[in-house]
Parts: sequence; structure tokens; C-alpha cells
Amino acid sequence: MVEDSPEYLQKRAFYDSLLTIYGRKPVLEALEDLSLPVHKLHLARSNRRDHLIARMEQLATERQVEIAHWDRKGLSRISKNARQDQGVALDLALPHYGTAEAFLQQLPEKPCELLALDGITNPQNLGMIIRSACAGGMDGIILPKKGCAQMDPLVIKASTGTAFKMRLLRCEKLAPILAKFREQGARICGLSSHARDTLAGLDGRQPTVFVLGNETRGVSDDVAGQCTQLLRIPMQNGVESLNVAVTAALIGFRRQT
Amino acid sequence: MVEDSPEYLQKRAFYDSLLTIYGRKPVLEALEDLSLPVHKLHLARSNRRDHLIARMEQLATERQVEIAHWDRKGLSRISKNARQDQGVALDLALPHYGTAEAFLQQLPEKPCELLALDGITNPQNLGMIIRSACAGGMDGIILPKKGCAQMDPLVIKASTGTAFKMRLLRCEKLAPILAKFREQGARICGLSSHARDTLAGLDGRQPTVFVLGNETRGVSDDVAGQCTQLLRIPMQNGVESLNVAVTAALIGFRRQT
Repeated sequence: MVEDSPEYLQKRAFYDSLLTIYGRKPVLEALEDLSLPVHKLHLARSNRRDHLIARMEQLATERQVEIAHWDRKGLSRISKNARQDQGVALDLALPHYGTAEAFLQQLPEKPCELLALDGITNPQNLGMIIRSACAGGMDGIILPKKGCAQMDPLVIKASTGTAFKMRLLRCEKLAPILAKFREQGARICGLSSHARDTLAGLDGRQPTVFVLGNETRGVSDDVAGQCTQLLRIPMQNGVESLNVAVTAALIGFRRQT
Repeated sequence: MVEDSPEYLQKRAFYDSLLTIYGRKPVLEALEDLSLPVHKLHLARSNRRDHLIARMEQLATERQVEIAHWDRKGLSRISKNARQDQGVALDLALPHYGTAEAFLQQLPEKPCELLALDGITNPQNLGMIIRSACAGGMDGIILPKKGCAQMDPLVIKASTGTAFKMRLLRCEKLAPILAKFREQGARICGLSSHARDTLAGLDGRQPTVFVLGNETRGVSDDVAGQCTQLLRIPMQNGVESLNVAVTAALIGFRRQT
């Protein structure tokens, strides 16, 4: 296939939309959720065939989902987490899941608001950010592979099901993709407790990416270099910082509460 | 002493203001924080006198804080948590810490806004609620002994230091104290995803208690019976609930973001 043929691009978009989850509980729950578009179930041949595995096979068969069997090494190449996959992985074909690059090429007409995560390493926080952003109506979350927690069972659990609803935009590193969003006319707002301007003072409706940094270290230098402005959330009682999922909620809900 | 003599009431107010924390790390950190009014250090005689214990004794001596030594049983009566106290407890005399009853008797002139917690059993969530409420400028948190997590090392850690700044109002059970707040003219607003009215629609400036229920079960029936109104926070994308600390933040920050 030629690299820019429509057929190739379509296939690539499909594979970019795959989110591979692992672990017996998350996989079983996803198979039971008929609203989730399941692509393929992966099982290790070394699995003891207990009732959980039997139930997964039964659900996959009922849903006409392909089942692939692998040796332990093959499965760990798919789950990318041999220590925690428990011999089970599942590909979800989520229409909302893709790359930041692809999103940039089809920027929506209406001014969108995205979060971008920089150094969010705690899976619990990542899950709660997804939950807050989803409830607050953010249009997507840019999640770099470098320096951030990735979609694993802990994140999915902490997101209370919203991980499968939220538009997640993957990229390798954050700074270069933010540069591209800038070129497309988006403003890049870094949240920082040292900023002069406040979140509440932000007006106008233009595409906006809000960058959330690590709770201890804040936004990293190379990412701060891509920000068009820095914003703070004024805090009472000398409190210095908010939980990052709380910050995500205050951004998402700021127009309605 | 007579039960209603000024001397008795003063003493009682002092003892009500004591927050006893335990565990080596929290106690050492509190002793190192010169902004915290420390009342008394309690040590088990069975403690091995390692460098941490020596450092605590040194700090207490420098700060002219009384040190009491106890057998294991005596110490666990003070910490109320023999399994986690690690042979160490510390009384803090926090001017902001007291009972909901005492607060009711001296209601501030300006319309105050309080949180009341109903069935918040997760220490991580309790700590994050305190942090959010403190940063959002809430005037206090009503924390019942029944059915809620209590101030322990996990809570203090999750509060990132705000547990010592926030006004915490203890009570035995929540419903009876809410009834008294009602009698004093406060409105009692239960947060519920099934409510018709929204948080954003709440207006007027009168004393208000916002009741946060358990994330799974919501506000309990006897507490709901004391609510003068129920409020919801509208959510996008079919999300059904928010993390309770996120809800606390949206309440506290609703006037400024």
C-alpha cells in the first residue's frame, strides 16, 4: 500500500484508534460493556483456564470478537506490561482515541478546548483528570508518551469508566506538538501558581490548550517555552497548589458554576 | 469546677481544640513546622531510641513542649490507633479546630459557607477535600465521628499541610447538628446528581452548609431529611458523578472561576 493512499490512511487511523488494555478485571468489564467497540481479545496460552478466562472467551464469541492466542512473550509485546497483564489483553477500537497529529489535521470548526498533560506520573491523578475533563466537557486530552502515566488498569479504574468516553490524543513529546497547535492559531495556556493573570480573566473564544504540569515541579521548561500565556487560580488561606484533577475540573467547569 | 463556669468553658474549649496526630513522619514534620502550636508530645517507653525519636525529643525541648512517656497501652489510649501510631503521638492546639456545637454558639456575623461530610470513608478523598476547601476559601468542614474517615496520617498527607489550616468542626452524628444549623437560619444544600436545581443557580448570601455524600451511595437518608434543598452539578458526556474533592472545589471556587 502506498503511504498516502486513502486505503493506507484509513487503516492507519483505525490502528491509531486502538487502545490496548490489560489485566483480567478491566478486560472482563470492557467485554461486558456492550457500548464499547471491542476489536480483538488476546490470551496467553499459559493461562489456567479458570472461570474468568472461560467467561471472556464466551463473551468474545457472543460478540463475534476475534480471539488470538500467544505465548507469554507474544502477549507481553501486545500488552507492553508483562508484569501486570495477567495473561490477558484487549484491543478497543475507540473512535475518540487517536493521535494529536491526526486531530490537528482535522481541527473542528468550533473553538475547542483541550488539556495537555506534562509530567503527570501518578495513575490515580491521570484517571481523575480524565473523569473531571470528561464531566466538564473538555474536547480532548493530549497525553504524551514521554513523562506521563499511560492508560493502564489503575488509570481506567480511577477514571470510573470515562477513559473510554474521553477523546485522548496521543503524542510522543509534548513541546513539539504544542508548537504545531500554536501554528494553527491555538493559544497555549500553562497553569502556574506564579502567573500574574488568572484563569477567570481569560476571555474570548479561540482554540485553547491548557497545560497541566507536575504537582511538585510544575510545567517543564521546554513546554513552558511553548506557552503563549501563563494563568493561575487564586487560592485562599495561603494554599500553594491544588490537586491536578481539581485544576482540570475548575478549567472545564469554569463557564457554568 | 462548675460545668458552666467561665473557667470550665475555657478549659473545655482548649481541649476541644486539640488535634492528636500520630505516626513518626507526621509527628516529626509537625514538630519541625514552627507555625503549628504544639501542646504535648507523647512517647511509648517501649520505643527504640533511634535518631527519629531523638530528633523529636530535641525539637520538643527546644520548643518547650511537654514530653509524656507512656506504656504501650497508655499511648494507644491517646493515639486511638495502636496499629499505626508507631509509639508516637502529638497534641496540636489548633485555634481552628473545635466542635460544631461551639461554632454554632458563636456564629460569625458574615454569612459563612461550610461543607458537611456524610460517609466520606476514603482518607485520600478526605485529605483532598480539606485541601480543595481550604484553597477555595470555605469557612469550615463539619466532620462527624460516625461514618467518616478521621484525621490520620494518610489524611494529613493527602491534605498537603492544609489539615492544620482549615477550620474542622467535629460532631458525633451529622443529622442532629444539621438540624441545629437549620434552626439558626442556615440553608442545608445536599449535593445530588438527581437534583433538579443546579449549584450555579444558587444565589443570595446566607449561611449555607453544603452536604457531600458518599461517592457510591450519595447522601444518606437521615441527612437528606435535614436538607432544605438539593443541588446538582450539570455534567457533560453522560458522566454520572465527580470525585468528591472535585465537587468540594467546584463549590468553593464557584464565585471566582
